[in-house]
Amino acid sequence: MSEVYATRRSRLRDHFTAAGTAAALVTRPANVRYLAGAAPQGSALLLGRREDLLVCAGPPDDRVCDGRPDENLRLHILPPNGADAGSGGDAAVAAALLAVAQDADSLAVEEHHLTVARHRVISSVAPTLRLTDVGGAVEQLRVVKDEEEISCLRIGAEIADQALGELLESILVGRTERHLALELERRLVDHGADGPAFPTSVATGPNSGRRGHRPTDRRVEEGDFLSVCLGATYRGYRCEIGRTFVIGTSPADWQVELYDLVFAAQRAGREALAPGAACGDVDRAARHVLDSAGYAEALSPLTGHGVGLEIDEDPQLAPAAMGKLDACVPVTVEPGVHLPGRGGVRIDDTLVVRPEADGGPELLTITTKELLAL
Amino acid sequence: MSEVYATRRSRLRDHFTAAGTAAALVTRPANVRYLAGAAPQGSALLLGRREDLLVCAGPPDDRVCDGRPDENLRLHILPPNGADAGSGGDAAVAAALLAVAQDADSLAVEEHHLTVARHRVISSVAPTLRLTDVGGAVEQLRVVKDEEEISCLRIGAEIADQALGELLESILVGRTERHLALELERRLVDHGADGPAFPTSVATGPNSGRRGHRPTDRRVEEGDFLSVCLGATYRGYRCEIGRTFVIGTSPADWQVELYDLVFAAQRAGREALAPGAACGDVDRAARHVLDSAGYAEALSPLTGHGVGLEIDEDPQLAPAAMGKLDACVPVTVEPGVHLPGRGGVRIDDTLVVRPEADGGPELLTITTKELLAL
Repeated sequence: MSEVYATRRSRLRDHFTAAGTAAALVTRPANVRYLAGAAPQGSALLLGRREDLLVCAGPPDDRVCDGRPDENLRLHILPPNGADAGSGGDAAVAAALLAVAQDADSLAVEEHHLTVARHRVISSVAPTLRLTDVGGAVEQLRVVKDEEEISCLRIGAEIADQALGELLESILVGRTERHLALELERRLVDHGADGPAFPTSVATGPNSGRRGHRPTDRRVEEGDFLSVCLGATYRGYRCEIGRTFVIGTSPADWQVELYDLVFAAQRAGREALAPGAACGDVDRAARHVLDSAGYAEALSPLTGHGVGLEIDEDPQLAPAAMGKLDACVPVTVEPGVHLPGRGGVRIDDTLVVRPEADGGPELLTITTKELLAL
Repeated sequence: MSEVYATRRSRLRDHFTAAGTAAALVTRPANVRYLAGAAPQGSALLLGRREDLLVCAGPPDDRVCDGRPDENLRLHILPPNGADAGSGGDAAVAAALLAVAQDADSLAVEEHHLTVARHRVISSVAPTLRLTDVGGAVEQLRVVKDEEEISCLRIGAEIADQALGELLESILVGRTERHLALELERRLVDHGADGPAFPTSVATGPNSGRRGHRPTDRRVEEGDFLSVCLGATYRGYRCEIGRTFVIGTSPADWQVELYDLVFAAQRAGREALAPGAACGDVDRAARHVLDSAGYAEALSPLTGHGVGLEIDEDPQLAPAAMGKLDACVPVTVEPGVHLPGRGGVRIDDTLVVRPEADGGPELLTITTKELLAL
């Protein structure tokens, strides 16, 4: 596995050396993890001229650490000093000093993550160091996944499918959104997840179909729409599944109509996934179905997004999104409609973009999308 | 309640206008929430010359929002635009433009939170605006709590005590750290918490006593130390309790000795809490007990910290900490010892600093600190 990390670092090094910078400082936790195998709390990764170092803010015993750092990477543990933690005596600053010690005259930093205060401290403690911006270079490397990463997402999706499937077998009427959400999170961990990929959303009745709805004490009632969105983190990788059900023996006409519409939009989005497809076109495929039915206002700013070490990564599937999809990019397709006061429908899958020759998009979240009456 | 927020904003305004700045931009979520009553995702608070505005990145339906924004504060909702979210077309940048529209020539920003990239975007879209640093001014306002805030912490502590108490009545041997942690988190929510204040830590046997230990699949065994650290979030306020127990009929001699030592250290720390006490002295009081017994190396960089809207706030109780405690400052006192391969003890309370005349420090987490054999 450690070769993977070395290869990733080497690709980043090619990028910043081509831009004329001698060393790079990576601080965004998901980026550190991608390149180093783990991102202990408060850590920073220095890609130096002579050596790559993972600088950690505390001794190993104080680290809250997911995964194991690449063994070929030297760990540099800072001495404990609680009082300095907020004032810049931290891993990022130490890494900048170590870059100077390695004769680097320039250091590319993640300006979209590094704070102004830390940037100033680095400038003042290492005034000979020319600071440049590495931009979203690591995020770009992260977009296309290797099969090992996709395998983690696939396992995470299986776990989420299992947790959701078990919930559907239980009695739902009378239970609160908060209890159902907790139950799902417990089941995720029972089935081997590191934890939930994001706060589980359970929305009933008038709350159903709301994106990112926080579970309340509202109880499930007969006739409700119930929309659920959950995901598992497995070895750091985060997937997402969302489904909407109806509670009771038979759905009302408006529920069937709305469900069919969102289902058609979601299918259109899924079917538009292909290597080379423009992200904006995928969004448009899903959005067009809802727009045509008069639901433009109800729609959220995006209909899907990349997933991986973070739950919301590039690419974005949104009207103004630039860029095209590649093979081996995992994305969600998750259109929804929420009617104030009545509720709504949201259907969300995680899929991997694959060429037609390989069977087209690979669906990771396989729970049925029929409208189940529970 | 809205007067509270107006008063807080007015205190911050006094601070930055005294420093010669016309307006301020608050972006750190806990700071936004403190001043505005809520911090919708991606929001920024502008304290302008003519009006204070809470700028939100998305329409209300897409916000994942704790609490309600102060009704006297004008909400400024940005038009949905998924593609701009990462490139600076966000609440912070919009707030800077609104400051210009209010004839501000200068804007104090939170340099310790704002990223270099966003700072650059603000400079380029509002070149007439002189950007200064408001520093940790809001964090400093947050240190001393009002009785409403302390009441939220007190309720949170009661919830954590209840959850812990119920766990102790159940059978523990054979259950995994992960299951026990999940069970505690479910109970927190059952008893009315918004959620856990931080990831619940359950550590058994050789893991016991480790600060921030992540629960594993290790099962509780007879003879183990079991250390548990949990907390509830209640109306945004986060408390913390940690206890260590022994599993089985009677603890071994080394367990009793180690427990008594950490208990003595924790009591010394608690007893040192008083208005006017130096933070370094409180730390020293607890640390000295362990140092004298030869456990200096085993000790973490701090023995306590403030709590409130974040679980780790000012003040720090650490060797090099500056400053003195005030009345109505809630802090943890949480020394611990971990012996590699054997395990250890951690005892953690949340207390509010009170003057002697009011009975001294108020203990919020009242679960017994006797060494219980479970």
